[in-house]
Amino acid sequence: MIKFQAEIDVMPKKEILDPQGKAVTGSMKNLGLAEIQNIRIGKHISLEIEAPTAEIAHAKVEEACKNLLANLIMESYTFKIEAV
Amino acid sequence: MIKFQAEIDVMPKKEILDPQGKAVTGSMKNLGLAEIQNIRIGKHISLEIEAPTAEIAHAKVEEACKNLLANLIMESYTFKIEAV
Repeated sequence: MIKFQAEIDVMPKKEILDPQGKAVTGSMKNLGLAEIQNIRIGKHISLEIEAPTAEIAHAKVEEACKNLLANLIMESYTFKIEAV
Repeated sequence: MIKFQAEIDVMPKKEILDPQGKAVTGSMKNLGLAEIQNIRIGKHISLEIEAPTAEIAHAKVEEACKNLLANLIMESYTFKIEAV
């Protein structure tokens, strides 16, 4: 078994309003950072997985994202896997 | 002015317990994904910034992380900047 580290980003879809991001974009102005725009806030998830091959690890992380980590109606996900 | 896209990860520090990550690690077992371990959950933040140089954009994002996006007592952050 090989141990892999996965780094997953789960973000609100572009079509979906992100009120938290909008609020933080507003706060940037008060902080004197008006040049920062269009903030979107999602989740970053790191995890370890043991699998015989990178392909299997990839498939398992995909399954975890689809079934638990992301709400596919409102969110999309991307991830990277590396052997550690 | 150049437009940059920043991708920021804000994660709970290693020394800090991450109860949300622990709970999700437990759920993986119920989902038949017991090979997934050590889940940690933080925030992923994407934003746009206009700046004359990459160095200035970098400094501004650093400032935003320190003053607003991350709680440095409990969280650490990493980010990447790319011209778009």
